[in-house]
Amino acid sequence: MNSTLELLNNRMSLRKYADKPINEQELDIILQGALRAPTAGNMMLYSILVIKDEEKKKRLSETCDNQPFIATAPVVLIFLADIERTYDYFKHCKVEEMCKEREIEYREPGSASLFLAASDALIAAQNAVIAAESIGVGSCYIGDIVENYEIHKEMFNLPNKVFPIGMLCLGHYPEDMKRRINTRHDKKYIVFDEEYKHLTGEEFNDMYDRLERKLPKDNKFGAKNIGQIMYLRKFGSEFFREMERSVELIYKHWKGNIV
Amino acid sequence: MNSTLELLNNRMSLRKYADKPINEQELDIILQGALRAPTAGNMMLYSILVIKDEEKKKRLSETCDNQPFIATAPVVLIFLADIERTYDYFKHCKVEEMCKEREIEYREPGSASLFLAASDALIAAQNAVIAAESIGVGSCYIGDIVENYEIHKEMFNLPNKVFPIGMLCLGHYPEDMKRRINTRHDKKYIVFDEEYKHLTGEEFNDMYDRLERKLPKDNKFGAKNIGQIMYLRKFGSEFFREMERSVELIYKHWKGNIV
Repeated sequence: MNSTLELLNNRMSLRKYADKPINEQELDIILQGALRAPTAGNMMLYSILVIKDEEKKKRLSETCDNQPFIATAPVVLIFLADIERTYDYFKHCKVEEMCKEREIEYREPGSASLFLAASDALIAAQNAVIAAESIGVGSCYIGDIVENYEIHKEMFNLPNKVFPIGMLCLGHYPEDMKRRINTRHDKKYIVFDEEYKHLTGEEFNDMYDRLERKLPKDNKFGAKNIGQIMYLRKFGSEFFREMERSVELIYKHWKGNIV
Repeated sequence: MNSTLELLNNRMSLRKYADKPINEQELDIILQGALRAPTAGNMMLYSILVIKDEEKKKRLSETCDNQPFIATAPVVLIFLADIERTYDYFKHCKVEEMCKEREIEYREPGSASLFLAASDALIAAQNAVIAAESIGVGSCYIGDIVENYEIHKEMFNLPNKVFPIGMLCLGHYPEDMKRRINTRHDKKYIVFDEEYKHLTGEEFNDMYDRLERKLPKDNKFGAKNIGQIMYLRKFGSEFFREMERSVELIYKHWKGNIV
């Protein structure tokens, strides 16, 4: 196994960091890794915010579903889906005027560019994760950054057509830390040949067996199985309700339905 | 520079492949790399389709904005945002019944789970790219896979709450091929400290200067600058109109607005 594959196989979400800053050279390596990521038409429909300010990290640790460890990361990167810069550039290039002259429609951003920009941003984020890992800097994704859109919009001066789609906490692995690599679902339940496949009840039982066996009968959720606990902790939870609300608002801003 | 960073810095989109299959061991390495990717709550809200069938690849080369090279890739991977499997599992676990008993709302998938599932899928895709690259297998993302949703839904037997968010063509680098690494925009226009920044006209001129200098005055689009050509070739084009239509339909299916 080559060293890159070893890295992919041994990467874990790091939520506890060594008491050691990420220096400028390290940060530059991580960012350059991100910037080399594949991007639709080489257009780079994303921006990256580097957050070191203690106040901002503290606030993020509250707005992202109250996860205090966020504030302890020496550096936080926020990956923004960004079509604002491109449309600013179109203005600079008098694209709308060109459309009028040619009598063709000038189209504002919609769902397609939202998909492309979010994809660009996430692909770049994963390159950052890998570049970081390769120099001993661990990371943790914070999906909760899509919550509380209005607060983050204000905090980071985001225009309407820019939104955070991913966030990474970065910090060095603590010395002598033992890595705990989460088991993933078996390949046969995720990867399919040629076409999609629904799983049977028996397959679900097998797929979740390792988790089912660890579930305490008297768990605090009163859940009878992993499905129920997943729903109660995630999809049916308060933070998920907030995420839903916030993402709907992100769409509306992107598509110009809120000025 | 370590070998992983070298890999990130030398990766290119490969659209021409050596006449050599991807063997099962290689494919397994690539897929295992993908499956090790970070995923929200270790839930793996995605599926991967492995496409080798010649007819299917041929059809994809047409449905994805007519790019014949797609059919020449030995393997194509389609990354699916997938909440169907999770909700199938909820059914298996009688989550809705539990909600009724507890008199709490049972919430169907919405925009938040769409964001999370698409993120999971794309992060896994980028891990596949890197695993592949590390064993000499090149790749090219096809963003056009979000077009023609109905056709792909039918071709790959996709349920309503599953959609393709990314596609990778995979194949070995041809021998003696000289790599062409695209220049990216300068870091200072993509990465910002602490908060978002709008660029000035002067900054745009500098940012696009390297492309502007290469633009033929008599280009076939009749464009006066890079912004105009970007709009005409991408955001204002026919394929983009199709992408817009298709992505809107994806949303509706995911959110249960089409049965």
